[in-house]
Amino acid sequence: MLKILPKIRRPVRCLSAVVAARNEGFAKVMQSDLLAFENFLGKDGVQKDDISNHITDWTGQFKGHGSVVLYPKSTEEVSAILAYCSRNKIAVVPQGGNTGLVGGSIPVHDEVVLSMNKINKQFSFDDTMGILQCDAGFILEELDNKLAKLGYMMPFDLGAKGSCQIGGNVATCAGGIRLIRYGSLHAHLLGLTVVLPDEQGSVLHLGSSIRKDNTSLHTPHLFLGSEGQLGVITSVTMTAVPKPRSVQSAMLGVESFKKCCEVLKLAKSSLSEVISSFEFLDADIMECLKSNLDLHPVLSKSTPFSILVETSGSNEDHDMEKMSAFLDECLSKNLILDGVLAGSSADAANMWKLRESAPLAVTRDGYVYKHDVSLPLENYYELTNVMKARCGDLAKRVVTYGHLGDGNTHLNITAGKRCEELEELMYPFLYEWVVAHGGSISAEHGIGQLKLPYSNLGKESEERLLTKKLKNIFDPNGILNPYKMI
Amino acid sequence: MLKILPKIRRPVRCLSAVVAARNEGFAKVMQSDLLAFENFLGKDGVQKDDISNHITDWTGQFKGHGSVVLYPKSTEEVSAILAYCSRNKIAVVPQGGNTGLVGGSIPVHDEVVLSMNKINKQFSFDDTMGILQCDAGFILEELDNKLAKLGYMMPFDLGAKGSCQIGGNVATCAGGIRLIRYGSLHAHLLGLTVVLPDEQGSVLHLGSSIRKDNTSLHTPHLFLGSEGQLGVITSVTMTAVPKPRSVQSAMLGVESFKKCCEVLKLAKSSLSEVISSFEFLDADIMECLKSNLDLHPVLSKSTPFSILVETSGSNEDHDMEKMSAFLDECLSKNLILDGVLAGSSADAANMWKLRESAPLAVTRDGYVYKHDVSLPLENYYELTNVMKARCGDLAKRVVTYGHLGDGNTHLNITAGKRCEELEELMYPFLYEWVVAHGGSISAEHGIGQLKLPYSNLGKESEERLLTKKLKNIFDPNGILNPYKMI
Repeated sequence: MLKILPKIRRPVRCLSAVVAARNEGFAKVMQSDLLAFENFLGKDGVQKDDISNHITDWTGQFKGHGSVVLYPKSTEEVSAILAYCSRNKIAVVPQGGNTGLVGGSIPVHDEVVLSMNKINKQFSFDDTMGILQCDAGFILEELDNKLAKLGYMMPFDLGAKGSCQIGGNVATCAGGIRLIRYGSLHAHLLGLTVVLPDEQGSVLHLGSSIRKDNTSLHTPHLFLGSEGQLGVITSVTMTAVPKPRSVQSAMLGVESFKKCCEVLKLAKSSLSEVISSFEFLDADIMECLKSNLDLHPVLSKSTPFSILVETSGSNEDHDMEKMSAFLDECLSKNLILDGVLAGSSADAANMWKLRESAPLAVTRDGYVYKHDVSLPLENYYELTNVMKARCGDLAKRVVTYGHLGDGNTHLNITAGKRCEELEELMYPFLYEWVVAHGGSISAEHGIGQLKLPYSNLGKESEERLLTKKLKNIFDPNGILNPYKMI
Repeated sequence: MLKILPKIRRPVRCLSAVVAARNEGFAKVMQSDLLAFENFLGKDGVQKDDISNHITDWTGQFKGHGSVVLYPKSTEEVSAILAYCSRNKIAVVPQGGNTGLVGGSIPVHDEVVLSMNKINKQFSFDDTMGILQCDAGFILEELDNKLAKLGYMMPFDLGAKGSCQIGGNVATCAGGIRLIRYGSLHAHLLGLTVVLPDEQGSVLHLGSSIRKDNTSLHTPHLFLGSEGQLGVITSVTMTAVPKPRSVQSAMLGVESFKKCCEVLKLAKSSLSEVISSFEFLDADIMECLKSNLDLHPVLSKSTPFSILVETSGSNEDHDMEKMSAFLDECLSKNLILDGVLAGSSADAANMWKLRESAPLAVTRDGYVYKHDVSLPLENYYELTNVMKARCGDLAKRVVTYGHLGDGNTHLNITAGKRCEELEELMYPFLYEWVVAHGGSISAEHGIGQLKLPYSNLGKESEERLLTKKLKNIFDPNGILNPYKMI
């Protein structure tokens, strides 16, 4: 038995500076282990040099340690590695595109990195039922491109689509901008091939490749959002959605947050089956876009809040008519101050550039504290106001953008440089406030290392105990992705 | 520790006649237990007489045994009962509307029936986010009626809607006729309150009441389709969908099954965001409807296959235009022999009456062997042909209807009366054929008692072991819904 991880002290800061101590129950990787890995994977499957891209996250916020990256090419090779590591108590971190924001896919101390980069051969698609089966290492954008030729698309989209992998998307239950239309990945997942970190490296084919199967516990769904704690996903079966023939975008200027919620309610009713995004930007992020990136609002008047609405449908005339009627109703009911319907794809691109550039714009202030939380709508924007008042002049900006249609806010607090005094004001206050107001401290990014100190906030002991018992069934030696989430 | 259940012999027949032996590790309910139950629930919470409706299923196919039905009124009362039963090794069967088709919600030997009928008080709905939170004992139709007043509806619909309860719908991952549009219940579930059958009667609040929450394992989804094996669901949080303002129906006559699949593909592309049903009837069920119920086809020509397509949308003109264009394209591509678009709600009702009366029509032949399986489309109708050839004159009819859009077929084989020779031809052949052809032996009805003898077909030992380990975490004494599913 391994030693139980030491209880992590409650940190002042929500930063990677707080790292759990190494679990001395884990073995260190020795020369004999490297030879064994080469035996399983061949010499080109074991990388010892130039691995910095695999032990550091892309934001540079998380700098981990490690000495080896493994590149299995098949489920069987993953099984061989996990069986070996389990028997030898070697900790392992599975890694997809390494595009996460919470430090979940890099080693903390000296875990072996199990890269999925070479598990990307098998792809099949049933274009009548819309069912995709593919290896876990496929990049999301590649899948989307393959499906586009067949009249379909992936049911979710995110900024990292050019690098993130479908296996990682499943492991993090990736959200993104289309969730209001197509639902979370739970709506689409049908089956998984997973390898367990047990002494046999057990290979499980869970779920099925058909749309309806009520013959067993629906275990594939337990892997959605499991952050590499339970097993390594090597293959995914899921539904895709018909590619829309018409995509319309509109930008609305709104006077109050209350009216933003009324616009959302009307959009869900009027745009019903065609709404595909409902994104939110406040005046402070618009100002930040202007001053830091010289990006100007598409609306002529400056308004306290902006909303970007998108529809996706099969008939352009119908979608334009619905969107126009929706805008007319917003105006006639005095819900909006201004509204523009994109007349061309260039117009639409300008609108989306504002929303998509927001994460970049904030970084130009110097230092940025990013957040990803969910809140009931009545508290959604109150958080911004509370944090503005609390941070005062220590913050350069307190800005908010996000997926309003999903209750997901990306509140960003910037400063000229990292500021401990500001951090002490923010944490744990912000997360405690979110939980006290019925929210979730992680909407779509997960827990990883970043939010581990707060992951028990508002969680009852019974649930925490259940989660640990579940982890123990799948990963009896606790070797998979330690120092994170569970 | 309880004794492990004896291995069930492989039966010749797929009927309730095959019953697992009583597990003698379970205690029998004594007078002292009844007094304890009355102590927890009051006298009116414990029913000992006239309980036949609770120990027999509605089809009369499953006749169980039992002496007491309990009616808790709250999560706390469920907790008190499960803690008591767990400590005293008394087996319990949770029961919702008792509308299932596989004998999953009735006691087999002498299990205590835990009825959810009185847990139906709390109902709340956020009509901006479309999030419903309600007690598990609410009847599906009641919820639908409440939501209709708020402009929303439940995202699934089934024949039993007037009796089935939302807790049971979750426990069976109910499917129905709108799955092609709104997805399975996995697409909608956000949170559950469940009581575990452990010695504390642990109450768990799993998931949350917001749309995005990536802070823990997504355990609520493990209860979807768990058939009362893991815990008792007392409260459900899920999304509802905007109520469509326009519903259009059309009936199509098709020459070959291959063309039915081409029509499906076209419908998914052309009707894309508005398609809400794609139902299938073959000529034999149409003939059965005519001869047994005097229900006549709405198409003038008799065709080998009929398809009922439904759209649900927010704009009647748009939906009519899409449906007309779809029918035109079907005709111009020679995919259909005939097609009728319902011009009124009476027309639509006539079309749906054919589909919805199919389960009744077959019973009029005398005896009916009902099936609910999923298959890849290339094998969907082959099963019907194979069973026709195999059953020959022993069968009165071999008819097929079902949710073609989901790959779900309800193959029904009728006879004048129960026929053992026919049963021996059918079972286990039919289920083995389904599994050998990439299908699932239960699409939406579940395993229960009916399909327990076949539940391991095609399942690998690793998955079966995992399922048992999971069951053991939630139900350490194995008292919940024994002799079924797991």
